[in-house]
Amino acid sequence: MFAEGVYVVGAGMTVFSGKLHAGKTGRELLVEAVEEAVKSVDKGIDLQKDVEAVFTGYFTPEYYEHQSHIGPLAATWLGLTPKPAFRTEIACASSSAALFTGITAIASGLYDVVLVAGVEKMTSLETERVTEALALASDDLSESRVGATFPGLYALLAQAYFHKYGATWEQLQRVPIKNHYNGSLNPKAHFQESISQIAEKVGKKLGVKYEDEMDFLKNSPFNRVVAYPLRLFDCCPISDGAAVAILASGRAARRFTDTPLRLLGLGLGSDNVALQDRVDLTSLAASRSAAEAAYRTSGLKPKDIDMAEVHDCFTIAEWLAVEDLGLVGRGEAPKAYEQGLTSLDGDIPVNTDGGLKAKGHPVGATGIGMLNEVWSQLRGTAGRRQIKNKAEVGLIHNVGGSGASAAVFIFGR
Amino acid sequence: MFAEGVYVVGAGMTVFSGKLHAGKTGRELLVEAVEEAVKSVDKGIDLQKDVEAVFTGYFTPEYYEHQSHIGPLAATWLGLTPKPAFRTEIACASSSAALFTGITAIASGLYDVVLVAGVEKMTSLETERVTEALALASDDLSESRVGATFPGLYALLAQAYFHKYGATWEQLQRVPIKNHYNGSLNPKAHFQESISQIAEKVGKKLGVKYEDEMDFLKNSPFNRVVAYPLRLFDCCPISDGAAVAILASGRAARRFTDTPLRLLGLGLGSDNVALQDRVDLTSLAASRSAAEAAYRTSGLKPKDIDMAEVHDCFTIAEWLAVEDLGLVGRGEAPKAYEQGLTSLDGDIPVNTDGGLKAKGHPVGATGIGMLNEVWSQLRGTAGRRQIKNKAEVGLIHNVGGSGASAAVFIFGR
Repeated sequence: MFAEGVYVVGAGMTVFSGKLHAGKTGRELLVEAVEEAVKSVDKGIDLQKDVEAVFTGYFTPEYYEHQSHIGPLAATWLGLTPKPAFRTEIACASSSAALFTGITAIASGLYDVVLVAGVEKMTSLETERVTEALALASDDLSESRVGATFPGLYALLAQAYFHKYGATWEQLQRVPIKNHYNGSLNPKAHFQESISQIAEKVGKKLGVKYEDEMDFLKNSPFNRVVAYPLRLFDCCPISDGAAVAILASGRAARRFTDTPLRLLGLGLGSDNVALQDRVDLTSLAASRSAAEAAYRTSGLKPKDIDMAEVHDCFTIAEWLAVEDLGLVGRGEAPKAYEQGLTSLDGDIPVNTDGGLKAKGHPVGATGIGMLNEVWSQLRGTAGRRQIKNKAEVGLIHNVGGSGASAAVFIFGR
Repeated sequence: MFAEGVYVVGAGMTVFSGKLHAGKTGRELLVEAVEEAVKSVDKGIDLQKDVEAVFTGYFTPEYYEHQSHIGPLAATWLGLTPKPAFRTEIACASSSAALFTGITAIASGLYDVVLVAGVEKMTSLETERVTEALALASDDLSESRVGATFPGLYALLAQAYFHKYGATWEQLQRVPIKNHYNGSLNPKAHFQESISQIAEKVGKKLGVKYEDEMDFLKNSPFNRVVAYPLRLFDCCPISDGAAVAILASGRAARRFTDTPLRLLGLGLGSDNVALQDRVDLTSLAASRSAAEAAYRTSGLKPKDIDMAEVHDCFTIAEWLAVEDLGLVGRGEAPKAYEQGLTSLDGDIPVNTDGGLKAKGHPVGATGIGMLNEVWSQLRGTAGRRQIKNKAEVGLIHNVGGSGASAAVFIFGR
C-alpha cells in the first residue's frame, strides 16, 4: 500500500491489572511498557537517538489523573523531548488512532522511526466514577445525560441480536469461556484463570459444587445480572495498563530486526454516536467500513486472516466483530462459536490473549495491546498460548464506545 | 517536501466570541465553520462525496460538554459517517495536531481530501472552572495540584524575560495595542475594538479621560493585575469558536481551486511539561524545535516569512514566539515592537487577525483559526486588515500549555 512499507520492529506492554498498578501514574505505566518494547528490539534501539516522535492514545486522563496534555508528558517521561508528541482519542480505540497517526507519519516520509503508545490508569477512581468517565464516549445529549451507561447500551445490542437471529445468552457464553481460557495462559492478562478455575474457587467459598462452566455462569449468584441480558462475565473488567509499539519505515526497519511485522492494510470507520440514530443494532457500520478499507488496502480477504484480536468489551461485541469482519457469515457467530472456530486450536483463533474480557481493557491501551499479541503470535513468542502452525497474517479490530468508531489493521510477517 | 504536495483548498471559521454562542454545543459550532469552509472552495466541493476523513482538535470537551469521543460526533454532525474520524489533543495546540494528522494522512497517499477541524466551547462553565480545565495542560503532580494556573505560569516567564533582558511591562504593551488594533479590523474577532476605543468607553463610564492607550493600560482600574506583572490586557479572553480547513493532495487540489495554499514545511516540538523541569524560561524549546523542523522541511529561513500568526495567549508569549521563530534576535523583541516591525504595515506583520489576545482563544480551534488568517491574507481576502503587497509565505505557530508543546506550519501560495 505505502511505497516503502511501514513495519513494527518492537512492542511491549505492562501487565493489565485491577490491583497491581495501584499508586502508579499513567506516565509510569508508559515507562514500564516502553522499557519492555526497547528490550524486544532484536538488534537494539537507542530510544533518544532513533525515535523521532511519539503518539499516545489515552481516553480520559482528565478524570483519572486530573491531567491532560498527555503528548509532551509522555515525551518528558520517556526522555524524548523536544520531539513531536501528541495525544489521540477515539474512546476505547484511542491507541488505534495513535497507531494510525504513527503509520501515516512514517508512510508520508516525514519520519523513519516513531513510538506509538496507549495507556489508561482507571483504578484511581471508584467504579461508579469510572462508569461515568466511560459514558463520555456516548452522546451526552441523548445517552449519558439521561443515565445510559455502556453495559446498558451493549445490552440493547445483545437484545437486538438475540431477537433477530434467535440466539441465546447460553450460546453467547462460549465467548467468556474461550477468552478466560486464553487469559489463563497469558501472564499479562488481568484475569489469568479459566472459568472452571473461578467456578471451583467460588464454589468452595459458597459451599456449592458447579457441574461445569455453564452451570456456574448460569446459576452462581457471583455471575449477577449487570444489564439484562448481560451478566458480570459478559463484561470486561476495569484495568490499568499501557502498551507501546515501535514503528519503522522500510528503509529503517532492518536496522532493528530481521523479522519485523509488515503493515498490510488499515482502515478506520465512524458511525452515529447515539444508538437511537443507527439503522441497525445487530452490526456496527464503523467496523464494517474499517474492515472494508483494511481488506481493500491490503488486497486480502477474510479467508486470508490467520488470527484476529477483536474488541470484546462485552461478549456480544465479539460476535458482532467476527461477523462485521467477515470471519463468519451474518448471524452465524453462535454456530461458529459452538463449533470452536475461534478457539486457540480453531481455524481462526480470536482473542488468543484473553481479549478485553480476560486480558483486561485499560481503554487507551487496548488497541496497541492487541498489536502486542499479534507481534507475539506472528513471531512465535506467545508461549503457552502460541497458535500451532505459526500465524502468517494477524488482524486487530478496536472499537470506540458503542461502535461509533472502529479501527482495523492487518499485519503480516 | 512531500512528493505530490499537500494543499489547503478551503477554510472557514465561526466568529470567536464570549457571548454569541451561548447555548450552542461544540458540534453546532463545527457545523457553522464547515458551512463557511464549503462556501470558500472556489470550484465547489461535495462534503459527503469528496471528503475522506475528518480529524478534530478539542482540548477539554470532558469538562465543557461532559462529552468525549469527539471524532465520530463531528462525523455524525457533518454527515460524514462512516468515514475515519478521531480527535487530537495537545492542549492549546490541539487543532494543530489535527492539521498535522490530516497533512501526513494525505502525504502518505492514503487519502486525497480530508477535513481538519478545531473547536472549544468554553463559556458553558464559570471562569473559575474554565481556569481549572485549562490547568489540565500543566503538570498535575507539580503545578495544577498545588494551585498553579496559566496566568501564574506565564507571569513567571514574563518575570524571567524582564529580568534577563531588562525589558519592562510598559514595552510589552505594544503587543495588546497592536493586536487589539488588528482585531478591530476583523469581523471574526472576539474583541473588535482597539484599546483607544476601549479606553474611551471605560473612561466615559468612570468619568476619566485617558491621555493615550498607555495611560489607560497603566492607570485604569479596569486593567487590573491578574498575575504580576501580567494584567487583564496581557491575557487572552475565554472564547467559544470553531475553525476548519479542507486539505487536498497534489493530484486532487486543482479540482477545487486554482489558487490553493501549498504546505511548504512543518514541525512539532515538545518540552518538559512542568516549568520547574526546564533549563531556561526566556525561550520555549518546543517552539525552537518545531521552527527548526519547519524551516528545514521547507528549505526556508525566517527572512522568507512574509507574515506570521503566533501564539499570544499572554502578551509575553508573543515576544517569546517571534524570538523562537527567529523573526527577531534573542532579547530583541522589545526593540522590534517599539519600531513596529510586526505591525500590520511593518516588515513582518504578526497576528494580523488580532491574535489570541483580541481574536480570542477557543483553545482547540486556535491553530486552524490561525490557518484561516493565512488563507485569507495569502489569497488577498482579508478585507480591512489585508497586508499591503499580498504576502507570499505565511507561518503559523501554535503552543500548548506553558510551552510543553508547539507546532509550526509554513504555507505559500
